[in-house]
Amino acid sequence: MPVNLVAPVAADLHPIAGVRIGVAEAGVRKANRKDLTVFLLDAGASVAGVFTQNRFCAAPVQISRDHLASGQPIRAMLINTGNANAGTGADGLARARATCVALARQLSVAPEQILPFSTGVIMEPLPNDRIEAGLPAAIADAQPGHWARAAEGIMTTDTLPKAFSAQVPIGGATVSITGISKGAGMIRPNMATMLGFMATDACVAPAVMQQLARELADGSFNRVTIDGDTSTNDSFVVVATNKAAHAPITSLASAEGQALKAAMLAVSQKLAQAIVRDGEGATKFITVQVEGGKTGEECRKVAYAIAHSPLVKTAFYASDPNLGRILAAVGYAGIDDLDQTGIDLYLDDVHVAIQGGRNPAYREEDGQRVMKQSEITVRVLLGRGEASDTVWTCDFSHEYVTINADYRS
Amino acid sequence: MPVNLVAPVAADLHPIAGVRIGVAEAGVRKANRKDLTVFLLDAGASVAGVFTQNRFCAAPVQISRDHLASGQPIRAMLINTGNANAGTGADGLARARATCVALARQLSVAPEQILPFSTGVIMEPLPNDRIEAGLPAAIADAQPGHWARAAEGIMTTDTLPKAFSAQVPIGGATVSITGISKGAGMIRPNMATMLGFMATDACVAPAVMQQLARELADGSFNRVTIDGDTSTNDSFVVVATNKAAHAPITSLASAEGQALKAAMLAVSQKLAQAIVRDGEGATKFITVQVEGGKTGEECRKVAYAIAHSPLVKTAFYASDPNLGRILAAVGYAGIDDLDQTGIDLYLDDVHVAIQGGRNPAYREEDGQRVMKQSEITVRVLLGRGEASDTVWTCDFSHEYVTINADYRS
Repeated sequence: MPVNLVAPVAADLHPIAGVRIGVAEAGVRKANRKDLTVFLLDAGASVAGVFTQNRFCAAPVQISRDHLASGQPIRAMLINTGNANAGTGADGLARARATCVALARQLSVAPEQILPFSTGVIMEPLPNDRIEAGLPAAIADAQPGHWARAAEGIMTTDTLPKAFSAQVPIGGATVSITGISKGAGMIRPNMATMLGFMATDACVAPAVMQQLARELADGSFNRVTIDGDTSTNDSFVVVATNKAAHAPITSLASAEGQALKAAMLAVSQKLAQAIVRDGEGATKFITVQVEGGKTGEECRKVAYAIAHSPLVKTAFYASDPNLGRILAAVGYAGIDDLDQTGIDLYLDDVHVAIQGGRNPAYREEDGQRVMKQSEITVRVLLGRGEASDTVWTCDFSHEYVTINADYRS
Repeated sequence: MPVNLVAPVAADLHPIAGVRIGVAEAGVRKANRKDLTVFLLDAGASVAGVFTQNRFCAAPVQISRDHLASGQPIRAMLINTGNANAGTGADGLARARATCVALARQLSVAPEQILPFSTGVIMEPLPNDRIEAGLPAAIADAQPGHWARAAEGIMTTDTLPKAFSAQVPIGGATVSITGISKGAGMIRPNMATMLGFMATDACVAPAVMQQLARELADGSFNRVTIDGDTSTNDSFVVVATNKAAHAPITSLASAEGQALKAAMLAVSQKLAQAIVRDGEGATKFITVQVEGGKTGEECRKVAYAIAHSPLVKTAFYASDPNLGRILAAVGYAGIDDLDQTGIDLYLDDVHVAIQGGRNPAYREEDGQRVMKQSEITVRVLLGRGEASDTVWTCDFSHEYVTINADYRS
């Protein structure tokens, strides 16, 4: 059961001029499943992406990186579910390239103008023949209004599609922003999420696109975790179709750059948080906020230690205010000179620990009240400095074990 | 259900001359439970310990460190379950000290000659009055033959007591070694385990005791993990009572030092592995062996990434050879210049992946056969150098979630 997340309503998602989306059933792993999605981009779009830091990155990740680096204008993205094409060696690269060649031929562009993405089981051969056979149907299906359909087309163990949209005035024009994402396991993105795609019709100079993609990922997908497993296939792509009637943004520090980035960040945070809300087996949405650190980096370390602790996560699942487990995670987060007597802990508004010990005014029933909520904020004050950071995560339930013990069957 | 672990038979455990052990029911958390254990040491014992690196280390850990550092000869150890006395601030220190004062008075020694240890729930006040009230019964119970009773006395969520014993000839004498340990959650020891105690009647110079304790911990307790949560209370203490009839060991590099260390290491590895075999919810015992690294450190990183991955651990639980998850963990273990095309993966004798891709000769039924076993060795070849390291862990089951969602209730 996703936590306070509902399926997107197609009519609420703004189409993006210059983007058409088609979905088909290619039978990659199972029949009668929308498992193939294509994004067709008009000429003139600016495209940037950030990808997993996993050294076992999948074949499509390697190829997408190469194609973006080639400098050729990107004209399409091709996404399959059911097979991650990771841990597949040279054969996996050849199969991913074959799908790009097939799509490029049908669009009359070069293979380097295609970005391929895959998600699903690792270390099994990609059935590229089935994907290639499904391409004509996906292309024929392409429409600007198909964002909700695409959000469904990229799902794996997700229980709900994830799509958000916004509009913002930029330089006298109203620009639209729409994005989709998918989870729902092997989620501790490092530079990107499992899969996230965002597009805007705003005009953004190619030179600033990579910075924009990086900063959006850092403020959203790089702040969530479900199980601490950084995937082999994490990819986050940002497209600016340059169709809106305003002067191109050439710096993110400009007023227009800041306005666009803020609007896009809000959408990307919703997309990232939606992955957590629909995390495998999630029953609660947890915000871990760490303040008073010497650096943002050490705040992040503490936040991730809490967010990854199976003991903390099972306590949230049980609504059991066994909050010493949070202190233990703070203690092993890796800050060597941490002084436990400087640390305070809050659960929402409840002051649980003070100066490293139990707050004498803390009552178990107050902790219990907060633990029963579906959304909880853990706030840790390190008492060492002015830096802070936030990570979003979910609890750890029986359902997580069930899902991951059965995923392939 | 512990994995291939049985309760110790009291008659198989060698008493250690100079050590008497008593157990009592103090009602620390629950009534009618053996929750208080004392080790009484004859004068002349050499004692050393290693403790958790968790910055939120418990009050008893801080006090045991201080007492060992004071240089006063240690004469007793005092262990309670039911309450960890961690995250308890200055009040926790005062309560732990009070138990040392009470025991010291009854033994006519100084409080600094007592080492206190606690395990149980974090951030709740230690009921030191009940512990103090239980001390006379524990002292009256003290016998050299009570090692099995002590193994039971220090249990928390363990399903079985853990104790092992050995004898080894040293310098013409036969010396005995006996140890006990407990788990079973919040286990990713960093310098020690939750609680481990070993004693030998061998004669060991105080000057080499710390090195001995450190090397034993590094080769045993520092190589196991259950859930990656480094506890606030990890403590491992080694006692040499110096009662055996041989010349004192003044160097671990001597023939006698090596023989004693090898025999003690074998016992400490059994104690550490027993914690994994009885890990919360464990159904399988997994050896993760990483070879071909540039350094032992990077081999350990890879081994721990695999051993901590919830996805890998749930796959073991399900006996599902979803082995791409292991490659993904290798990829995010933190070796920046790792080349995936150099990596091979074995599951026992089954060659699963070769040069970063699926081994063409690998058959799913072979992986399936090994995954069904109760003991499995994962072998990763990094192809980068000559170093290797090994970590022991268990799988991740529904029962783990159940135990940790219910632990306090």
